[in-house]
Order: sequence, then structure tokens, then C-alpha cells
Amino acid sequence: MPILLDTTKAPVLQRLLDETDTTGLTWSIEPGGAQALPSAEVVVAGIANLEHAGPQELSFVANPRYQSQLIDAQAAVVLVTAEVAQAYRDSLAQAGRADQALPLVVCNSPYLLFARIGQWFDRQLHSQPAGAIHPSAVVAPGAIVDPSAHVGPLAVIEAGVEIGPRARIGAGCVVGEGCRIGADTVLHPRVTLYRGVSMGARCVILSGAVIGDDGFGFAPDPSRAKGAWTKIPQFGGVRIGDDVEVGANTTIDRGALDDTVIGNGVKIDNQIMIGHNCRIGDHTAMAACVGIAGSTTIGQRCSIGGAAMIGGHLKIGDDVFISAATPVHSNIDKPGQYTGFFPMTEHAQWERNAVAVRHLATMAKRIKALEKK
Amino acid sequence: MPILLDTTKAPVLQRLLDETDTTGLTWSIEPGGAQALPSAEVVVAGIANLEHAGPQELSFVANPRYQSQLIDAQAAVVLVTAEVAQAYRDSLAQAGRADQALPLVVCNSPYLLFARIGQWFDRQLHSQPAGAIHPSAVVAPGAIVDPSAHVGPLAVIEAGVEIGPRARIGAGCVVGEGCRIGADTVLHPRVTLYRGVSMGARCVILSGAVIGDDGFGFAPDPSRAKGAWTKIPQFGGVRIGDDVEVGANTTIDRGALDDTVIGNGVKIDNQIMIGHNCRIGDHTAMAACVGIAGSTTIGQRCSIGGAAMIGGHLKIGDDVFISAATPVHSNIDKPGQYTGFFPMTEHAQWERNAVAVRHLATMAKRIKALEKK
Amino acid sequence: MPILLDTTKAPVLQRLLDETDTTGLTWSIEPGGAQALPSAEVVVAGIANLEHAGPQELSFVANPRYQSQLIDAQAAVVLVTAEVAQAYRDSLAQAGRADQALPLVVCNSPYLLFARIGQWFDRQLHSQPAGAIHPSAVVAPGAIVDPSAHVGPLAVIEAGVEIGPRARIGAGCVVGEGCRIGADTVLHPRVTLYRGVSMGARCVILSGAVIGDDGFGFAPDPSRAKGAWTKIPQFGGVRIGDDVEVGANTTIDRGALDDTVIGNGVKIDNQIMIGHNCRIGDHTAMAACVGIAGSTTIGQRCSIGGAAMIGGHLKIGDDVFISAATPVHSNIDKPGQYTGFFPMTEHAQWERNAVAVRHLATMAKRIKALEKK
Repeated sequence: MPILLDTTKAPVLQRLLDETDTTGLTWSIEPGGAQALPSAEVVVAGIANLEHAGPQELSFVANPRYQSQLIDAQAAVVLVTAEVAQAYRDSLAQAGRADQALPLVVCNSPYLLFARIGQWFDRQLHSQPAGAIHPSAVVAPGAIVDPSAHVGPLAVIEAGVEIGPRARIGAGCVVGEGCRIGADTVLHPRVTLYRGVSMGARCVILSGAVIGDDGFGFAPDPSRAKGAWTKIPQFGGVRIGDDVEVGANTTIDRGALDDTVIGNGVKIDNQIMIGHNCRIGDHTAMAACVGIAGSTTIGQRCSIGGAAMIGGHLKIGDDVFISAATPVHSNIDKPGQYTGFFPMTEHAQWERNAVAVRHLATMAKRIKALEKK
Repeated sequence: MPILLDTTKAPVLQRLLDETDTTGLTWSIEPGGAQALPSAEVVVAGIANLEHAGPQELSFVANPRYQSQLIDAQAAVVLVTAEVAQAYRDSLAQAGRADQALPLVVCNSPYLLFARIGQWFDRQLHSQPAGAIHPSAVVAPGAIVDPSAHVGPLAVIEAGVEIGPRARIGAGCVVGEGCRIGADTVLHPRVTLYRGVSMGARCVILSGAVIGDDGFGFAPDPSRAKGAWTKIPQFGGVRIGDDVEVGANTTIDRGALDDTVIGNGVKIDNQIMIGHNCRIGDHTAMAACVGIAGSTTIGQRCSIGGAAMIGGHLKIGDDVFISAATPVHSNIDKPGQYTGFFPMTEHAQWERNAVAVRHLATMAKRIKALEKK
Repeated sequence: MPILLDTTKAPVLQRLLDETDTTGLTWSIEPGGAQALPSAEVVVAGIANLEHAGPQELSFVANPRYQSQLIDAQAAVVLVTAEVAQAYRDSLAQAGRADQALPLVVCNSPYLLFARIGQWFDRQLHSQPAGAIHPSAVVAPGAIVDPSAHVGPLAVIEAGVEIGPRARIGAGCVVGEGCRIGADTVLHPRVTLYRGVSMGARCVILSGAVIGDDGFGFAPDPSRAKGAWTKIPQFGGVRIGDDVEVGANTTIDRGALDDTVIGNGVKIDNQIMIGHNCRIGDHTAMAACVGIAGSTTIGQRCSIGGAAMIGGHLKIGDDVFISAATPVHSNIDKPGQYTGFFPMTEHAQWERNAVAVRHLATMAKRIKALEKK
């Protein structure tokens, strides 16, 4: 399914780039070969992956691994680094096809430029709902909804909530007492915020996410029954910074007494669980299915691979990369990559190795004994 | 709690089988011993597990492991293979109790026949809501809802949606702009479909599932802050075939540029995460808590065990069986079973073995050194 | 953010303790040093962690590890054991600061007392909605809602439901046909109960939880296509005892023929998956992201660490502790702690060790060969 604008909205390349946010980017249009349109006439009606892009679609090469696809590309224009541009022209020249070169945008970061152009397309394609409260929404008296904000059908906004300019609350969301939603923040349909959750500007919260639910806190209560537990009410809140994304069906517990804190620019994928009183540093990103037990602090700019499981009361420093499927049970002070999972093999081989793993400590002793002899 | 029809609906055995879909099955009723009802008079008022089935309930032996329970069973009739039937009669004869034999239905696949009879019971027990749109639902002008389809209370159907014949949209669902729902497909309560999701006929989507949410795509954006990310809008859709089941609180991301694709007959359990641009082949089944990172292709007829975690940009062929709790970080071309997890032991033993694991590479070298001597 | 009562509600210490449920606790107020307020005058306006507690806030030392923080604490009063009290007074005396001792409540279980005082605060701070059905809720005729129960906005209550005294159904919940909700049970917003779920008194179900969804049951159906499956309808229910907590976005499958059963006092954290026909014994607690496959029985008073994955058709006895991130694939009869995960190291070291793991069985043989020489 191509991502296409209707023809009245498709701009020429130069206008598209003028209207794109290119902060931090350097770029220049390089004309194509004789057979290409002059770059001033290149119309960009859509965006696509290089292998599917047609003659009115913009594409990109973010990873030099894919540059070999470029030689047969059909795109209107391609975003590339200077190195990829040079390799492309050299390959075409060697093949005697220099006149077939496509127009390029040579850029210090084609992937970032592509992201920004994508945001431009997104604004054209998906009009934001106008600032209005759907008549089926249930908004408590005293909730403050900025006149430019939008509240979707069947949403519930409880007392004391403040919703900032241009924020959008999707269909079926529940925003609990006293929550604060910053400017331009978007709650997709069916998000739940418990009471007292605050979040900054430009956040995106995906459907099914639950933020501010009770942390898992119980005290042993043998007076009721052997092994019984009694609930420790969770009084803390959740504070979320600016530019945070929270994935679908992710859960972020409220703190027990102090708050759970998510820093600016943190990106949290789907089905992640963040326990009470965790603190996540700015710009840390975590892939789907990660779990973080309570009271753990994670530094800035960390990457947490999918399904990594991080224990409670730990301290992970800045710039740490945890591999996917890795359980973390100790503090990490030093930047770097950390890994721990049993490597997959064919099942029969795993069975033999698994037997050996169970006797590893003994094996170690036997080696020692052999060395002594 | 027995699964019982009211007496007016309980059929005799022959009629039950006549009304059951037995495509692909061969079966015959075998009369019981002298003390059993003639099979033409066996009334089936309910279905139950063998150990609980009473004299008006149908049961089954799907796994020969459980055939020893048969000798003391009280059921009205039992579905069995020819082998199990023979063993049952032999055991009764040896015990001098041949006249106590229950009526049997001898069948090439008792489990499949049981499933089909279960579907018959399900239709009797759980009447489908009549085709109607609940007055509390919010249906956008221009959405096309087949007159035989049902939309439950407080559901939201956005513009451009098409809902096919006899489809049912549960209470509190949100169906985003332009989604297409095939005939006889059922969305249980509180399902969310983002814009542009299409699904075929006879699908079942369980509560809390989120389909078509944004894939997790960000470009590094150092112009804003060290380590900052900017969102890559996700333009692709999700295409789901016929006869697909999606479990409760499962999430399936929309594609970045191309679509995420789920083949026909795929069965997806609860709390599974499928990343953007994944392609899942026909009839593949995956147990709960599986995670699949973006752009991975999985073949047909695969089985993915619970909590297996599959990395991104991988290719898994047809007929592959991934064991539960196994992380997959490389392509798999060859059919077969693949496994990788650390075997559980008592904690003290694990602690000793875990120390040795950390020094395994060194141990390997020491063994080599010993061998050289 | 301090947890503070308004001044009209802040009690003196003695009254607070009189109004707190202290069943099973022994406690006494011990006066502070000369500079402290007489304990009869200590006003408790809030509760806080020891490091943040100010002169009107109550705090506690549950873990002797944190007792060193006590010497500099500023709290109004601190809950401690007799041992911690003694150590505190000794330390102050040594430092020549005996007159600065804070008032203490000496107690056999400070953590339990703290939980109970927290519950007192919770009642003051978070008034329960009055018994009423919000006009936007959709309640089927024939559903029985106790007059003292509360049904929030946009909730759906289907036919045949019974909701007990003082129970509260949050905004946007869907309570399916024939469910029974016991007295004082609370469903947070956006919980889904399928038909026929029963739960006892004083349960707490967090947002996004789905209870009673179809178990994952399919029979191979080669008559339709190679590798195809057909659904086995799930007729069983879910029975939940008293005092159970179910976390956010957790899913509990209904049984296939028999019920899924959750015992009294079971505490289930977020994003947990419990398969069909599981039986969980009284007072067992499980941390987030645990998965339990179908038909597994878990005993009483077990602790299941976060992200532990338990296979199907297993039997785990009483008082078993499964470590976090541990896969369980066999029965466990004996109480004790069980563990199995690959220990994390720096990535380069893991890579070397992972290579060795793949050859472990061979290594074991080579050691044997060396020993023979």
C-alpha cells in the first residue's frame, strides 16, 4: 500500500525540503543523470522503501548494507550520505549507465531527514481532530480542558484534570483525578491514567497503556492466615517528562510513597512493565516486553533490548546497553553492552548441553583435579 | 460446573453427530455392553472431561496416556480411536466386566471430533446477539455496517469502516478509520483497532488486543539533545487473513512503510507482541507471552512456545518449532525443534553452576591445555 | 510529593493507632528525648520514607539495613522493632545526642503496622464514590447491583450479573453475563470480565485486566488445510477467592471444560498470563510478567519471581519460591528456591562463554577421557 498524497498536496522536492524541519541537518540536492527529471521538477507524491518506491516516491538509504539496492531503484529521489552517493555514481559509471542516475539528496543523516520528511507527510495525511469535546465524553465539572485540545468519544475526564493546548485524548480513555497532560501530548484510544499522573509536552501514549496503577506492595500478615498478605496503599504518583512515548499495553506503576519518574525523551515500546518508584533517565529507549522491578534507577541514554528483565532496587548507569532477553540482577556502573541468555541450538543438542550445565560446578572441580595431577 | 443443555435441546447421539460438522472425519457408533443404553437411546445433555463426565455427558480420549481412566468412566458415550476402543474392551473383558462397556464413537481423530461437537454445543449455549447497533455506540457517518452485523454498547466505529455480514463488535471496542472487518469475525469487548487495519472472515480477537498501533521507530536526533530520538511516523497497515485468532492484550504493530501481515489460520495467544513489518505464515500458532521484534518473517505451520523471544530482521522457515522460553537471534532454515534456556535447579546448585558458566571459555582452554600434555 | 492530610483530619499519634486495625500486632509508644514533643502531642499529618519524612510525618524502619538512616531522621514518629529502637538509642547516646531521640512506636512488625496505618490514610485521602450507577453506564435489565455498590461512567453490566455490597466497578469496565462480584471488591477502570466469572469479597482488579477470556485451545484440522487448526470452545469459568489482587493488563483464561481457580489471598502483579484450567493455591504471590501455561497447579504460599515462565500440566507444591526469569518445565514437590537463568556478563565475555556452552556435552566427554588416562 503506497503512502501517497493526493495530487493537490504533492510538492516539488525543493518545497518539500523547505517545509521540512531540517534542524541539525546539512543537505543538498544533487541532480540525476540525463534521463532523470531536472531536480526542480521532481514531484514527491509519496514515500516508500527503496525496493518498492516508484517514480513519484521519495526513498532513502540509511544503512550502507542496502546501498546495492540503489542501482536498480525507481524512486523519484533518494536520501543518501555522501559516501553512498559516490558509490552509486561509481557503480552506474562502471555499468555505463551514468545517465540513468536518480536525483539524490545528500545528507549527513539520511535516516533523520527521512524521519522529518515522514513527519511532514504525517501532518498532510492524518488531519488532527479539531479542538472539541465529543458529546459522548464524560468530563467532570472542574476539569480544565484547553479550548484547542480534543477529547474523543466516550472518554472519561475526572475532576481536577488539566489538559494543555492542542493535546488530544483518544476515544475511550480514562484520565483520573488531578492528572496533568502537557501541550501537544496525544493519548491514543483506550489509555488509562490513574489519579495524579503528570506528563509533559509532546508525549505519545499508545492504546491500552495503563499509567499510575498501584505498585505491587504487600506486607506479610500472619494474623489473618499463614502466608497471608495485606495491601500497602500506593500513595506516590507518576511523573513523565516531555517527548516521551509509551507503547501499547505497557504499564507504569505509581510510586509507593515517592513518585515513579520517567525522564525527558524516554521511548518505551509495547507491553513493558515498569515497577513502582523506578526512575528512568532521559532519552533511554527500551524495546518491547521489558520488565523492570520496583525501585530500580536507570541512567540516561540506555538501550534495553526486548524482553530484558531487570530486577528491583538496582542502579544502572548512563549509556548502558542491555541485550535482548537478558536478566539483570546486579548494578551496572560502567557503560557498555551486557548480555546473558542461553544460546539456542537444535533441541537434541540443547538437551545434551543442558545435562552438562547441571553438572558444571562438578566439571570445574574435575578439571582442577586433573590439573593438579 | 457441568456444561449442560436444557433438556429440550439435548439430542440423542445419532442426531448430535448428524448435526455436527464431520468434514474430514470418519466415525462410527459402537454399542455398549448389555448394561448400557442402546446407542440409539443415548441422550447427550452435556460434555465433560472423562473423570467428571456423568451418564448424560459425552467425553473423549484424545491422548492414549489417559485411556486408563476409561475403564471407570461414567459417561454417556466416549469418543476414542480404534486402538483405544480395542484396549478398553480387552481390559473390561479381562476384568469380567464386558457387559459394562460404554457406548463409543470410534473415530480417526477424537480430539477434532470433540472440537466440532464443542462448537455445536457453543451455538446452542451462547446465542449470538442479533444484528443491531446498540444505541450507546458511536458510529461515524459513512461507516458501513452490514445489517446482519452487531455493534455492542459503547463501541466506537470511525469513518470509512466496513463491517461484514454477521460480524460482531463487542462492547467498548474502538475501530479506527478505514478498518475492514470480514464476515463472521468477532471482536470481543474492548478491542482497539487503529486506522486501516483489515482482517478477513471468521477471525476472533480477544479483549484488550491492540492491532495497528505505531511500530517502535525512532531516528537518533542529536540536534535536540545528546542521545535524543525523533519519531518515524508509521504509515504501513496491518493485514490479517481469514480464521485468525488474536489473544487478550496482544499487540500487533502497524508497519513502518509496508504492512505487517498475519496469514490465514494463524493462532496467536494472549500477551503476544508482534513488531512492525513482521510477516507470519499461514497456520502458525504461538503460545502466550511470545515477543517478535520488527521485520521478522516466520513461515507456515510453525509452533512458537510460550515466552519465546524472536529478534528482529530474522527469517524463520516453515514447520519450525521453537521451544518455550527460548530466545531466537539467528535465522532458521531447517524444520525441526530449537531450544535455548538455562535448565532450572535448586537455587544453591544453580549458584554454583552459574559461577562456572561465567568461566566456561577459560574452562574450555584449560581442557585443551590438559589434552596437549 | 508528601502524602498529607488536610489539617482538620490529622490526628494525634494515640488516636491514629486507636483507629488503626492492629490485629495480630503488639505495639507501644516510646517517648522521644527531651527535645522531642511529648508523644501525646505528636500530630501525624502525613507518612513518608525515612529520608524524606518531616516533623509531622510518620515513618518506619522495616529492614534493619536502613536503620542507620534513623539517626538523622526528622520524622514525627518512627515505627521500629525493639532491636532497632535499642540500636537507635545506643547510637544517639554514644553521639551525646540522647535528648534528640524521636518518639518511636515499638512493634513486633513495623512493616505490617505501616501497611495498616497506610490503609487508614488511604481511607481519609481517597473518598470512595457513593453507591450509585452513573447515568452513562449501560446496565442490562435483570442485573442485580447492590444499592451500596458503585458503577462508574461508561461501564457495561450485562444480564444476570450480581454485584455485592459496597463493590465498585470503575469507568469503562465490561462485566459479562452472569458474573458475580463479592462485597467490597473493586474493579479499577477498564477491566473486562467475560461471562460467568465469579470473585469473592475484597478483591482488587487493576485496569486493563482481562479475566475469563477464551483459553488457547485448538485441534489440528487437516481437513481444511495442511497444518490448520479448529477452535475448541472454552466452556469453563474462572473462580476467584476472597482478597485477591489482579494486576494491570493481566489476563486469566477461562477453563476449557472445568474452571480456572484462583485461591484466597492470591496476589498477582501486572502483565501476568494465567492459562486455562490453572489452579493457584491460597496466598501465593507472583511478580510481574509471569506466564503460566494451561492446566498447571500451583500450591499455597508460593512466590513466583518476575518473568518466571511455568510450563503447562505441571504441579508445583506449597511454599515453593521460583526465582525471577526462571523457566519451569518440570514438577516441583519440595519446598525451597528454584532458579535457572544464564548469568549476565559483559557482552564480549558472554560471547566467549556462549560458544563454550554450545559444546558443553563434548567438553564433558573430553574431561571423562582425560580422567581415564
